Amino acid sequence: MTAATSVKSIEWVGGLDGYVAMIDQTRLPVETEIIQCRDVDTMCDAIKRLRVRGAPAIGIAAAMGLVLGIRDEPGRDREGFLARVGQVAEYLATSRPTAINLFRALDQMRRRAGSVPFTTVEALKVELLAEAQRIRDEDAAMCRAIGRVGESLIKPNSGVLTYCNAGLLATAEYGTALAPVYLAHELGRRFRVYAPETRPLLQGARLTCWELLNAGVDVTLLCDGMVGSLMKSGCVDLVITGADRIAANGDTANKVGTYSVAVIARAHRVPFYVAAPGTTFDLSIEEGSGIPIEQRSPEEIRRGFGTVTAPPQVPCYCPAFDITPADFINGIVTENGIITPVTRDKIREKVG
Amino acid sequence: MTAATSVKSIEWVGGLDGYVAMIDQTRLPVETEIIQCRDVDTMCDAIKRLRVRGAPAIGIAAAMGLVLGIRDEPGRDREGFLARVGQVAEYLATSRPTAINLFRALDQMRRRAGSVPFTTVEALKVELLAEAQRIRDEDAAMCRAIGRVGESLIKPNSGVLTYCNAGLLATAEYGTALAPVYLAHELGRRFRVYAPETRPLLQGARLTCWELLNAGVDVTLLCDGMVGSLMKSGCVDLVITGADRIAANGDTANKVGTYSVAVIARAHRVPFYVAAPGTTFDLSIEEGSGIPIEQRSPEEIRRGFGTVTAPPQVPCYCPAFDITPADFINGIVTENGIITPVTRDKIREKVG
Repeated sequence: MTAATSVKSIEWVGGLDGYVAMIDQTRLPVETEIIQCRDVDTMCDAIKRLRVRGAPAIGIAAAMGLVLGIRDEPGRDREGFLARVGQVAEYLATSRPTAINLFRALDQMRRRAGSVPFTTVEALKVELLAEAQRIRDEDAAMCRAIGRVGESLIKPNSGVLTYCNAGLLATAEYGTALAPVYLAHELGRRFRVYAPETRPLLQGARLTCWELLNAGVDVTLLCDGMVGSLMKSGCVDLVITGADRIAANGDTANKVGTYSVAVIARAHRVPFYVAAPGTTFDLSIEEGSGIPIEQRSPEEIRRGFGTVTAPPQVPCYCPAFDITPADFINGIVTENGIITPVTRDKIREKVG
Repeated sequence: MTAATSVKSIEWVGGLDGYVAMIDQTRLPVETEIIQCRDVDTMCDAIKRLRVRGAPAIGIAAAMGLVLGIRDEPGRDREGFLARVGQVAEYLATSRPTAINLFRALDQMRRRAGSVPFTTVEALKVELLAEAQRIRDEDAAMCRAIGRVGESLIKPNSGVLTYCNAGLLATAEYGTALAPVYLAHELGRRFRVYAPETRPLLQGARLTCWELLNAGVDVTLLCDGMVGSLMKSGCVDLVITGADRIAANGDTANKVGTYSVAVIARAHRVPFYVAAPGTTFDLSIEEGSGIPIEQRSPEEIRRGFGTVTAPPQVPCYCPAFDITPADFINGIVTENGIITPVTRDKIREKVG
């Protein structure tokens, strides 16, 4: 087991009467607290409060949350049980209304519930737990595949800038943007990662720095506004970020701030890559302008550290995501290879 | 009296037996605490602890601090008194060893003490208080002149983005970057100011938002990484920032993050202006690469709010300033007019 994978962001512990163990990401980096979810309300709340975050990790959490929500269901008939599965899925779907992986994982669970040959409700519950585990294991395998596809982008003695956290904490293992980093590190390559802190919620400072230090990767923290100065100094050879959603033309929604990094990277001729599994593509959306952007609470900016950092009444601009147009992206690293150049046709080839 | 000028960052209250009243900027935006300095030690400590900040405001504080330090001097002979003036000036000079305005103001005070026709020590003390007042008044007049020169850049119903704090808190009144904003506001023009928070020390969130709200200016706060998203949305028509130092070719050192804003502004064809008095130009420095960049403590990034926001041992990239090359700057607003295009020759014309 490598250093990178010695920490699990989320896992089911035990059998059907077990629980979900996950790192409370809101406590990092001060404390590495593992929380145990034993009921669907706790899980729903954990997703809402970003204790678990990162699109794939949220999908896994939702699938496991569904199991928590139905495992004590007393009913014996298939139809009643399936209706209950649907209710719990709908309840979980309210926790993070813009997270596509959440809907996809819940859909997969519902389809599995509806398609598996029925014997007893208890057997169906076991099947659903197995399905949730499969979602986790497939995510881990997919992240590792992204890592294998992308690791050669990271040259010896180079500087790699990532943004936000698309690492093992956001997925089952390895991460998406950080999978190439972990794979290159496993191969003994030397390089440095630069992590902007990612205001307002500081996922770069709190999570990316934490997990990379933990894995022994050379990482340097900076404030988001310092990206220009850093790139001008010539320290950055590659940008690689994750994605929340990718439209059919390659326009990519990711944590707000990503687009600023992409603009600055282009101005300095630094290649900008996105790493994301095929499931992050939403081919039903033609282009970035069709991706809805969630607005977050101004309080995240005005008192993000439990401290008043701005006048309490000042209005805030606080989108959760921004859109990086396809033509700013040199390539998208997927589990099936790198999409480059980023065009509608190339995307359809790889993930159509 | 306008709303903009109803708050004074620093002023001398009363006669020679009076005191210096200033806003404790370390308490903003939580509390608007006016501190009264009645002796030179209190003033020296206030400068050291950044209770007063902003190059021009520090110069004024030092000049007034000198008056506090000599007003109770009992001596009757000119030479003994001048020697004492020199001692107090040297003591004040230790408070902020990199602040050029501090040295400049103290030099001006010493020169005045040495050059004014001598009658009595008491009369000389009164002259020095008048000189400190003059430094303050001249700064206020210069800021107002910058405002008058620059206000027409701000179009009705436009969006203006500034960075860090170059407002009234940093000067005697009006500020530099914010002087055009205050003047346009006084003229009844409607527009919106966008203030990135300016990590790590949050001068944008804490100070710029506070003073603009206070003056009734429409201001919206955002995180530094959101500048790209905001500009892409078309809300920003003009960027105007201050400057710490401007080289002979127009390359401008300002708070780190300014260069990122300039790169993003250019990519969106948003005009980028710097506002600064002639004293900010250092024609002895040929270009930006000759401006020394102070490195700040990593602790400002890792635990900037008394809260741990990153792993304590993570290395940080933490320059205090960055350099925006002249060719990113559409114009420099000075008290003598706008320098545009920003070339060596045009600069020499206006401030040579």
